[in-house]
Amino acid sequence: MTTDPTAQAISELKNLLGERLSTGESIREMHGRDEAYSAPALPDAVAFPETTEEVSGIMKICSRHAVPAVPFGIGTSLEGHVIPIHGGISVDTSRMNRILEIHESDLDAVVQPGVSRTQLNDELRATGLMFTVDPGADATLGGMAATRASGTNTVRYGTMRENVLSLEVVLPDGTIIETGSRSRKSSAGYDLTHLFVGSEGTLGIITRLTVRLFGQPDTILAATCSFETVDYAVNAVIMAIQMGIPMARIELLDEVQMKGMNIFNPDLSLPEKPHLFLEFHGSDTGVKEQVEMFESVGEEFGVSGLQWATNAEDRNRLWTARHNAYYAGKSLRKSCEGLITDCCVPISALSECISQSKKMAAESGMIAPIVGHVGDGNFHLMILVDPNDPDELTRAKSLASEVNKLALSFGGTVTGEHGVGIGKKRYMEEEHGAAYAIMATLKRAIDPKNIMNPGKTVEVHL
Amino acid sequence: MTTDPTAQAISELKNLLGERLSTGESIREMHGRDEAYSAPALPDAVAFPETTEEVSGIMKICSRHAVPAVPFGIGTSLEGHVIPIHGGISVDTSRMNRILEIHESDLDAVVQPGVSRTQLNDELRATGLMFTVDPGADATLGGMAATRASGTNTVRYGTMRENVLSLEVVLPDGTIIETGSRSRKSSAGYDLTHLFVGSEGTLGIITRLTVRLFGQPDTILAATCSFETVDYAVNAVIMAIQMGIPMARIELLDEVQMKGMNIFNPDLSLPEKPHLFLEFHGSDTGVKEQVEMFESVGEEFGVSGLQWATNAEDRNRLWTARHNAYYAGKSLRKSCEGLITDCCVPISALSECISQSKKMAAESGMIAPIVGHVGDGNFHLMILVDPNDPDELTRAKSLASEVNKLALSFGGTVTGEHGVGIGKKRYMEEEHGAAYAIMATLKRAIDPKNIMNPGKTVEVHL
Repeated sequence: MTTDPTAQAISELKNLLGERLSTGESIREMHGRDEAYSAPALPDAVAFPETTEEVSGIMKICSRHAVPAVPFGIGTSLEGHVIPIHGGISVDTSRMNRILEIHESDLDAVVQPGVSRTQLNDELRATGLMFTVDPGADATLGGMAATRASGTNTVRYGTMRENVLSLEVVLPDGTIIETGSRSRKSSAGYDLTHLFVGSEGTLGIITRLTVRLFGQPDTILAATCSFETVDYAVNAVIMAIQMGIPMARIELLDEVQMKGMNIFNPDLSLPEKPHLFLEFHGSDTGVKEQVEMFESVGEEFGVSGLQWATNAEDRNRLWTARHNAYYAGKSLRKSCEGLITDCCVPISALSECISQSKKMAAESGMIAPIVGHVGDGNFHLMILVDPNDPDELTRAKSLASEVNKLALSFGGTVTGEHGVGIGKKRYMEEEHGAAYAIMATLKRAIDPKNIMNPGKTVEVHL
Repeated sequence: MTTDPTAQAISELKNLLGERLSTGESIREMHGRDEAYSAPALPDAVAFPETTEEVSGIMKICSRHAVPAVPFGIGTSLEGHVIPIHGGISVDTSRMNRILEIHESDLDAVVQPGVSRTQLNDELRATGLMFTVDPGADATLGGMAATRASGTNTVRYGTMRENVLSLEVVLPDGTIIETGSRSRKSSAGYDLTHLFVGSEGTLGIITRLTVRLFGQPDTILAATCSFETVDYAVNAVIMAIQMGIPMARIELLDEVQMKGMNIFNPDLSLPEKPHLFLEFHGSDTGVKEQVEMFESVGEEFGVSGLQWATNAEDRNRLWTARHNAYYAGKSLRKSCEGLITDCCVPISALSECISQSKKMAAESGMIAPIVGHVGDGNFHLMILVDPNDPDELTRAKSLASEVNKLALSFGGTVTGEHGVGIGKKRYMEEEHGAAYAIMATLKRAIDPKNIMNPGKTVEVHL
């Protein structure tokens, strides 16, 4: 018998899970990184639970031995959330991937955390309903809830914050709780659902979610159009929102990004000017009306090159191109990586914030295309960097830091949708002030041994 | 010098606030009750702060002497939230009633907690914007956030949960924090905003709110219509929502309530059958389309007596009548009080839940009209009771309890919008299971001395 707590935990986990507890090098490596630039770190073992009770059993063992547990969905996060920087057990939810219930009358679905957004939408197709949150990656719903993810549809349908009705969560000590209910609203005490949405696996492991669904619109019309400046494009968006045009998607791509788009998607061939990619949802007449209103707004700001994509194939091509914006951006420079910012500001400050960011990028000499969910005030600078050039990496990080501080100065946040993880912790004190200490208070209360994804979101010292 | 902590706190508060700290009997009595049936209890003193710093000063004094502090808006809550059952200081926010900022481009407003919803809307009228949450009473926004209030517009525009973007809160120890920002979305750590929305003054005192605004619709059309049964009315609503008709208001009033409405509003004179009161918001053509869709849905369920209210005066008469539903219900019986339930269930269970509730009411021999925000699955049974007849009061409470348990059996909540306060605490264990203990954990972490509105929402023993 060993006295090393990790080894003891692993031995007990093997008893619980058999072959679904792996200490193999390659499996551990797959669970030691995400899709971005944080340094990898290996878990000591990877657990593949199939039930809530197994997750509870895992946490009881981890708790008893004070061994870290790090929830893992599919590894597409961008701020190092899933990287076990203090070792321990990676809890992979990929085997909990069943769609449990679809309630058509209630417009909700109950799913396990390993279900991906496209998996759910494939299942929903025949019902006339849809799940709307669409980050670029085909992430798991558990991971999306944990990072409070959003996407191109958020301007109309909300983020995970608005789209999670209730959760089943396993707490650090193995207790299983349900937060909220399938009721549309409730005043029954503290809002635990929203406490766990966005908690990045630091307070518990999500083992079941009830998510909102919406009816598929009768008519969907997508479009692209260009403006002479980013300013004009953003101001058109502000006016459209103020007029109450219920647009389903409003994506900005600046002239630098458009250059990359054309390289990566040769058949797109759009002018290298700031663009909006748009989508309108509604009834036939409703969409027609929205389009007329948007056209009149666009004209005020010198819109040009309006192109409509009415059929599903054209629309899909358009949005696939948008979802591949990261790769398109990277095609602007050979063998580079993209360091991605995620600022979100009140929309009235957006055009000023983007224009100052572009100036900072130009002054730094870095190539930094911009895409943005402008209807939400959220924009991403993708700073293209040679990862093998430490000097350049330093300059890129310093540019990102400047842009983040700029967003804070406009009353914004450094992360609109990617989360804090490891990478954004350093800004939290500045962003939240005294409220950041309260987050640590909550963390200590719910996870007194600091075993749930330690070192992410908020630093706790025991 | 006295050693009584309350007396000491009051003496220090007098130094801080001068005449704005009152121990007068009548002022204390005004702060010892709300609009419903919980037994009154007097505070030892009432404080009238004018600034956040003063609220912080009050909490520092209360914390030092471990004296309870109970936030007070305007006293319209229904579950005893503002009643100082353990004595202490009632903190009345009525002097913090300034609208601080209106951001038209960002569709938000920053207000002090004592601002009432009609005060804000009066101020907004000229801007073309509106604040949508409308509980019956003209409550303060601070109180509405604290109880996670909602109203007749919620089916389209959301509850306070969706309409509060950020808060400034004074914690029990006097620390001032800001939760969130004016950005539309954020993934920057734990969602403290939603933790305080609905916390009923048990975690801190809200001293500033940023709330969402919406554009006033071009066209507003209200209507009433009747159905042969509550079932048909509810099923029409379910179908309308599934078809995606974005109705702004869908209120159910059953045949018993309609009888009261006709007594209380003689010029209403509507048939004594289950009714829906409706409102459609949108562009001219949009509203026309919604109405056509709704009419076709209504026909499937035997709608009759559709009456339209197109001009503002008729609409106001209609919604004033709806907001006075409590008094209309009470007019069904002489000198009675109304004991009001507040269940909310998944909408697919609503018609069954209402029909069983009506049966229970009939069996109990009580008169119990029903109004409901049916688009949200929320309905109120108003059990008419002679408050001087203890026997009857017991029967009324037992009926309410049966109805509450019924809602829980359908996966619902015992409070859709009124809150827990004193009256609903007894159901929380059953509703939340193990999650209720986590609420106590959070309460202890943020308010270790249990001085913030003690005895409400969640019971904590030190």
